[in-house]
Amino acid sequence: MATYQFQPTLYHTVIGSHEPVLRIRDGDSVITTTVDALGKDAGDIQVTSPGNPQTGPFYVEEAEPGDTLVVQLDRITPSRPMGYTGSVVAANVVDPVYVRELPERKLAEWRVDNERGTATLIKPETKLGNLTIRLAPMLGCFGVAPPGGQAISTATSAEHGGNMDYRGFVAGVTAYFPVFVPGALLYVGDGHAAQGDGEIVGTGIEISMEVQFTVRVIKGKGIRWPRGENAESIFAVGNARPLDQATQHATTEVLRWLEEDYGLDATSASLLLGQCVEYDLGNIFDPAYTMVCKIRKALLRVS
Amino acid sequence: MATYQFQPTLYHTVIGSHEPVLRIRDGDSVITTTVDALGKDAGDIQVTSPGNPQTGPFYVEEAEPGDTLVVQLDRITPSRPMGYTGSVVAANVVDPVYVRELPERKLAEWRVDNERGTATLIKPETKLGNLTIRLAPMLGCFGVAPPGGQAISTATSAEHGGNMDYRGFVAGVTAYFPVFVPGALLYVGDGHAAQGDGEIVGTGIEISMEVQFTVRVIKGKGIRWPRGENAESIFAVGNARPLDQATQHATTEVLRWLEEDYGLDATSASLLLGQCVEYDLGNIFDPAYTMVCKIRKALLRVS
Amino acid sequence: MATYQFQPTLYHTVIGSHEPVLRIRDGDSVITTTVDALGKDAGDIQVTSPGNPQTGPFYVEEAEPGDTLVVQLDRITPSRPMGYTGSVVAANVVDPVYVRELPERKLAEWRVDNERGTATLIKPETKLGNLTIRLAPMLGCFGVAPPGGQAISTATSAEHGGNMDYRGFVAGVTAYFPVFVPGALLYVGDGHAAQGDGEIVGTGIEISMEVQFTVRVIKGKGIRWPRGENAESIFAVGNARPLDQATQHATTEVLRWLEEDYGLDATSASLLLGQCVEYDLGNIFDPAYTMVCKIRKALLRVS
Amino acid sequence: MATYQFQPTLYHTVIGSHEPVLRIRDGDSVITTTVDALGKDAGDIQVTSPGNPQTGPFYVEEAEPGDTLVVQLDRITPSRPMGYTGSVVAANVVDPVYVRELPERKLAEWRVDNERGTATLIKPETKLGNLTIRLAPMLGCFGVAPPGGQAISTATSAEHGGNMDYRGFVAGVTAYFPVFVPGALLYVGDGHAAQGDGEIVGTGIEISMEVQFTVRVIKGKGIRWPRGENAESIFAVGNARPLDQATQHATTEVLRWLEEDYGLDATSASLLLGQCVEYDLGNIFDPAYTMVCKIRKALLRVS
Repeated sequence: MATYQFQPTLYHTVIGSHEPVLRIRDGDSVITTTVDALGKDAGDIQVTSPGNPQTGPFYVEEAEPGDTLVVQLDRITPSRPMGYTGSVVAANVVDPVYVRELPERKLAEWRVDNERGTATLIKPETKLGNLTIRLAPMLGCFGVAPPGGQAISTATSAEHGGNMDYRGFVAGVTAYFPVFVPGALLYVGDGHAAQGDGEIVGTGIEISMEVQFTVRVIKGKGIRWPRGENAESIFAVGNARPLDQATQHATTEVLRWLEEDYGLDATSASLLLGQCVEYDLGNIFDPAYTMVCKIRKALLRVS
Repeated sequence: MATYQFQPTLYHTVIGSHEPVLRIRDGDSVITTTVDALGKDAGDIQVTSPGNPQTGPFYVEEAEPGDTLVVQLDRITPSRPMGYTGSVVAANVVDPVYVRELPERKLAEWRVDNERGTATLIKPETKLGNLTIRLAPMLGCFGVAPPGGQAISTATSAEHGGNMDYRGFVAGVTAYFPVFVPGALLYVGDGHAAQGDGEIVGTGIEISMEVQFTVRVIKGKGIRWPRGENAESIFAVGNARPLDQATQHATTEVLRWLEEDYGLDATSASLLLGQCVEYDLGNIFDPAYTMVCKIRKALLRVS
Repeated sequence: MATYQFQPTLYHTVIGSHEPVLRIRDGDSVITTTVDALGKDAGDIQVTSPGNPQTGPFYVEEAEPGDTLVVQLDRITPSRPMGYTGSVVAANVVDPVYVRELPERKLAEWRVDNERGTATLIKPETKLGNLTIRLAPMLGCFGVAPPGGQAISTATSAEHGGNMDYRGFVAGVTAYFPVFVPGALLYVGDGHAAQGDGEIVGTGIEISMEVQFTVRVIKGKGIRWPRGENAESIFAVGNARPLDQATQHATTEVLRWLEEDYGLDATSASLLLGQCVEYDLGNIFDPAYTMVCKIRKALLRVS
Repeated sequence: MATYQFQPTLYHTVIGSHEPVLRIRDGDSVITTTVDALGKDAGDIQVTSPGNPQTGPFYVEEAEPGDTLVVQLDRITPSRPMGYTGSVVAANVVDPVYVRELPERKLAEWRVDNERGTATLIKPETKLGNLTIRLAPMLGCFGVAPPGGQAISTATSAEHGGNMDYRGFVAGVTAYFPVFVPGALLYVGDGHAAQGDGEIVGTGIEISMEVQFTVRVIKGKGIRWPRGENAESIFAVGNARPLDQATQHATTEVLRWLEEDYGLDATSASLLLGQCVEYDLGNIFDPAYTMVCKIRKALLRVS
């Protein structure tokens, strides 16, 4: 179980079957860096084209189609003191008649302080003054190569993951992806120092990151949608429009999970979810919206 | 500021301009009871037809169209030891192809213990055993008479409130409704001892309730969608299909709220919500779905 | 089988269980008038409040809940030479980012010539000059009282019909409605001299009408959504948002129709519709959108 | 202006920047063949994997990003006497609660007779007997390489075209695509001998085709969505879910077209479309649904 240091020299804005940048094995860890959504690195230098450029892909030796790739997010740390956000809620997030009232979009700047664990609004000058919020660093876009030779834009998301922009993907979380191609081909990028539900201004606090992750492979067991697990809960991620469909995907995936791995039949799973399920809104900005269906682990210690 | 005891003798399954059952004033409180969604009372006796029968309407003397009715939920207490839930997730909440795998719907029973603050699954027998969860009593359906002589089914929700099935409407919360008719005509009902996000089995733990609430009237100030406030947050409620549109309504209402009452311009409001907004899923079961847009009050102490 | 002349003196902007204005029997015809969507009569005089005011309700003696009301549209003739339309496509019909480019909404005027069968744009002055189109007079909003004491705004539509704004409801068409209350309580109104698919400017050419219709009752046979029939086709009307759901309702209703009345099983009905079905877009403007699922009668002469 | 005969030896099930199979110039024609959606050729032999395999890509020398590729569909002729369809309406096209009533999906066979211009249902045996319908051969999936290195599955559609399954794309129609990559990279495939609106059983009459098309390039003029033109009408094609969004894309594209090429301002364009627009439903089956916004050319001879 090795730990690799990997410094990217090129980035991808589509997630597909590109040439691997590193070959790793089940159990290995990788310490690497990601540029921000605009293609700017830790020095705030534009090193690649904008659009959620991804570090990778990482080829996981044991991973074959039909397996599940486990990605433990060990560390996600902002690597520079300045992040950027949009300044206006997206037109598709407000009532159509309200769109006329939206101001022009600008780029806002936030000072990110890892030691204090805070992000502070620097400009533009607004009625918020120096609004300061807690850091909650996350990956907006990550995932594996899709099947069939597809190369999917990092603007959007699907069964393979991608631009889910779910603020639950913080360090300490374990993510699960279906493996569609040999080696799985894992990509990581689009770090946010913090983000609201829905990513309704079209950005989190976009920033370059230092990222450490550890991979494992679950052989011979497939999943249909990305999943995740943190200390309290397990969850599944549905990506689609409208939100109704994203919700259907996520809910169905959790039902199957409970049936396959937790010994529940459909009625048991329904009764449990009916009174205890939680939903988180990933993004309602990207071409595919993201809804997360979540259930607390404490409820799964079933007789 | 009087406190009325009101014992209902009839119930309504449409919310409209019915004859008031009680006339109250700004500042008054009402202690009353509600039957469960099926029309069963505290003795588990069917006293009225099913379909979220409502207690009321209560006529608030000062309320006129264009005002806002404030409804402080003082107490919501289950009034019998047995509640009912659906046992199968709704067909519209799962992938269309998964619908075939859903079992037949039955009514499940839960024992509700106010002293311990728990609800325990009694039947059917499932792999969950005697699953026990925390009580979190709430009102699934409440609101005011809609405008223009409409009488809207308690199966659904709209600008006037109604069957929002949002588990955030617990005791301690203050709800706000637009006033459309003289006296506002407030209805309350459809108590749930607990409920998951989305009400995905089509029910919470349906139960009769003792309810106490206090009304106030904000004169000359209208809102467009129901709002709420608890110790931590303010929120607005959008009701529509698809969820995307419900989200648009809720988000727009919070933006207007921040602009009108908190001195923020559209850019400030956007910057704040962009990184700090939270969304809760009310229901994704009823004819209109419900999405809640929420922002913590601590973030609103702006300069 | 009588023919009644009925001159309305009041109008309704909600469709509910109002006092009947006339009691008629199976086979009877009614000749009456409707005001335009703005409440203006044949003399262009405002005689009632805007919002698709309806003439009626007409009580049909034989009609009981569970029956089907048949409404033959015998004649729909504009009763004045001037009609009105919106001048700007609705915000919800264009890309959210395009909304900013929409001009301000004004009322346009069209001269309606029954003899020539044309409508000519009079003002505002535009690059279209005196655009002249064919008349195709239709009813935008008509239907029966909904169940359970509901009173539904004439702004929207549902299982009971209402504001479907489908340009297929012209003279010569037979409409079918589920009967929810004794007497069915039929309303008619919201005439359009012509209308595009989708009613995307929020109006057809709004105009007062002379309307003649004949009712029949199909006893003991219910339907779930409005249906219609013209010389070429039978069709069902689904009303909901998003359009996807309206399409589901309309398609399901045609499937059931083929199965119940045309002796097809689900596979036969699917094979037929799969290669031969047609869809018409009613409205994509109102709170509920309308999609029409249609199949040519010539294809239904099955072995 | 050459005419090429091209016989494919490989096929693609993603539309991306693959190696061109033929380089052609503005004005050139190509006569080629396509296999059916299942990968079967004119001899009903499986020659490639299923999933709407495409012939191409064809590199058009003059085409550069920002241009428009014009594709005149000269001839689309079924090349074998047997076509296949699904036998059950898709689960997402009917009410969720109706899904349980759907029978199992089988492949149905149709005999295609080019001389008589008919398709006849051969099996399974159904209540339809030997249902015979008119041929209306079309291309279900065709388009150009998308931007940014994307490779998009032929299961779906987007700005680049792809699997629109619109039955208006018959011989005689001219299609227009935005050019995203040098050479445009045109693909054609997925022929249907006939198809209903919506492709609601998930297929047209799937069949191999002989296809002839002629390309032109409009230099320096871009479009945002596929467009088309036939003898009567011009139209734009929106691809997205839900249908509401597809409709927004198509409508916005026609508005821009009228503004850019027909000298109409937004008010004129709105007034015209409002009373005269037509919508066709492409597919409501694929991952992205397709709506077509159409206006008759006779109405565009504006002053």
